Amino acid sequence: MAKKLVGAALLGQSGGPTSVINASAAGVFLEALKHEEITEVYGAAHGIKGILDENFYDIRQEDIAELERLKYTPSSAIGSVRYKLKDVNVDPTDYNKLLEVFKKYNIRYFFYNGGNDSMDTCLKISKFMKKSGWECRVVGVPKTIDNDLFGIHHSPGYGSAAKYVATSIMELYLDGTVYNTQQFVIVEVMGRNAGWLTAAAQLASVGGVQPDLIYLPEVAFDIEKFYEQVGALLKTGKSVMVVVSEGIKTKEGKYIPELEAEIKKDAFGHANLGGTASILAKHVGEKFGVKTRAIEFSLLQRAAAHLGSQTDIEEAFKVGKIAVQKAVKGTTDKFVGIVRDEKSETYKAKFPLLPLHIVANTERKVPQEWILPDGKGLTQDYIDYALPLIQGETKLEKVNGLPRFAKLKKVLVAKK
Amino acid sequence: MAKKLVGAALLGQSGGPTSVINASAAGVFLEALKHEEITEVYGAAHGIKGILDENFYDIRQEDIAELERLKYTPSSAIGSVRYKLKDVNVDPTDYNKLLEVFKKYNIRYFFYNGGNDSMDTCLKISKFMKKSGWECRVVGVPKTIDNDLFGIHHSPGYGSAAKYVATSIMELYLDGTVYNTQQFVIVEVMGRNAGWLTAAAQLASVGGVQPDLIYLPEVAFDIEKFYEQVGALLKTGKSVMVVVSEGIKTKEGKYIPELEAEIKKDAFGHANLGGTASILAKHVGEKFGVKTRAIEFSLLQRAAAHLGSQTDIEEAFKVGKIAVQKAVKGTTDKFVGIVRDEKSETYKAKFPLLPLHIVANTERKVPQEWILPDGKGLTQDYIDYALPLIQGETKLEKVNGLPRFAKLKKVLVAKK
Repeated sequence: MAKKLVGAALLGQSGGPTSVINASAAGVFLEALKHEEITEVYGAAHGIKGILDENFYDIRQEDIAELERLKYTPSSAIGSVRYKLKDVNVDPTDYNKLLEVFKKYNIRYFFYNGGNDSMDTCLKISKFMKKSGWECRVVGVPKTIDNDLFGIHHSPGYGSAAKYVATSIMELYLDGTVYNTQQFVIVEVMGRNAGWLTAAAQLASVGGVQPDLIYLPEVAFDIEKFYEQVGALLKTGKSVMVVVSEGIKTKEGKYIPELEAEIKKDAFGHANLGGTASILAKHVGEKFGVKTRAIEFSLLQRAAAHLGSQTDIEEAFKVGKIAVQKAVKGTTDKFVGIVRDEKSETYKAKFPLLPLHIVANTERKVPQEWILPDGKGLTQDYIDYALPLIQGETKLEKVNGLPRFAKLKKVLVAKK
Repeated sequence: MAKKLVGAALLGQSGGPTSVINASAAGVFLEALKHEEITEVYGAAHGIKGILDENFYDIRQEDIAELERLKYTPSSAIGSVRYKLKDVNVDPTDYNKLLEVFKKYNIRYFFYNGGNDSMDTCLKISKFMKKSGWECRVVGVPKTIDNDLFGIHHSPGYGSAAKYVATSIMELYLDGTVYNTQQFVIVEVMGRNAGWLTAAAQLASVGGVQPDLIYLPEVAFDIEKFYEQVGALLKTGKSVMVVVSEGIKTKEGKYIPELEAEIKKDAFGHANLGGTASILAKHVGEKFGVKTRAIEFSLLQRAAAHLGSQTDIEEAFKVGKIAVQKAVKGTTDKFVGIVRDEKSETYKAKFPLLPLHIVANTERKVPQEWILPDGKGLTQDYIDYALPLIQGETKLEKVNGLPRFAKLKKVLVAKK
């Protein structure tokens, strides 16, 4: 067991929010408040930016009940940021400032909650602190709806977003097939490089709804083949539902809005081309004379805490809690992973501490062998993988028929 | 008490679905199955179209448990239609066919579930049957997320859609304000002529979230003033959230996509201009150099049964049930209204039978005195009106973490 390290604990949230990133914050905060060696519990306003600017919220001022409610509150309660630290050899300014701030506020425990970029940030800070001789335990807390983190079974945030996608596809399918006239509905799901969230549309099949076509960015998108397939489906007279990732690309590596911009370039310059779904919908409408509707899940898919997976919420909470427990016991330079306990017949998660470098700056894609050809969906292997992650309904409290999200006081710590 | 009328009962669903229109179908079907004078219970496939084509589902073949699940199943389970009967004096073809079918299948009870157009259909059919001497009791069952039906307090379907809007606005607001960089988020809500559903964004204030600006179609949209207001809000440095109805129009009566088409007319002909929100977002982005995001609730707002208001579900069920109970007792030419019991201090609904003509082909708008000037939202009067309608959480059953919607056998009745 490592020596007792006395000082303040600091959490930062980073990158795009999820509906359970605050559950991890709740895990960190509530656990940190329990340990006597942790003298202060701080939340950085807007991640790294808040540290550089010395904007810290004093978590001891918050009501415990509100911190508990963070479990069910979407978005990043203390503010997020997109900020990539430069290489320390190129520009050490930020690092020196971070060290100064860590010393001034006696920060001995640093937790950073984010995706692969944020794990990279953790790694860089951890290395710099070590080199500078400032003892500080750095533990990463993973999150992302994209589910593209390497070395773990899945990311906190994915389960809830996947539940949103699968549920909404079921509902939209029922709606989209209601008239006796044909309709073409195309739904666009987030995930620029990895198709995990789009794949969740396949989970709707467990509820009895199979979207006609599902396109992931892991497979080159053949637009002519797409029209062929849609044409064949429309010939049956039935309404057609297609689910596409925002990140689908042609084999030349072009996103659909890029392609469209090339077609339209001469016509007019700065058109609002719209997203992948609306462009494809427009072309299908023109080609086949069918009524179309393009639907983007947009921010809803990562903000819909009312549809959170309780499994996901509990896991997100645990990764935060375990980060603190392990840091207090001496862990540093690690992140809290989630792996599936393969010995257990039913789904059970384990939370090993893994080295930061395996997750930093890498992206995990949906395995090719799980993707059926020609947009026909995902295999049973994918369903077996993902279905456990969407189980359980959120315990989000409702008041007046509306979510009762956490209300933090956000008392700023006096600058030193 | 009217004489006992023995024969079949027929329900048709019409117009745009809601997440509770099937709750009304459940009310009709389950009640109809209880009455001995109702010999058969039919569901018309795709409303009037199904009657003209003699496509009837035999509801007696369905499992009661599945009919109960209809209460929580979105969309129109037996299929909807948009079909407006011509004036009988102009073209009696459809009417004669309807009479022939009613006689052939001995239809003595006819229930039609829809909005103002459907109530008009009810009225026309009722008049024609009476004139032709075919005794048939016709009762309208109201529905619409638009809440624009005259003569009643609110429409079944509105409460659930309003709950979806208010909840999603709360979630999106939290997400939209997460970064330290400014963002302009604009959300588009359904309602071509009446702003009831857009007004529901104001209910988010009860949960602590006040959208910066809310624009209803009831007030002429002044685009220059809009830019002024947005500019002033952006100057504060905070992120801005605006909610607009798809139906906002300038004082010259132009919808935003129409305006845009005029601007773009010479550049190129058949552009996919996108919706109101995405056009406004584009212009705000260009004018103020701010990051923008346009979000359309699209079909989600009328299909999201997972977020149904239990109050709405129960009321939708009751209007269906009461329609049958009253028809059996002799009522015809009426629809089942919902009014608020003003004698009760807490919210309580009453279900009077009202003449069809008061609701047919009219539209009820949001009262001007409930709309604050300059997009500042709605008054407390609106909140007092609408808040009771979103109370209670749906009892939708979940299996595998997904909604367990009704699965009907849909056995077609042999054509006579």
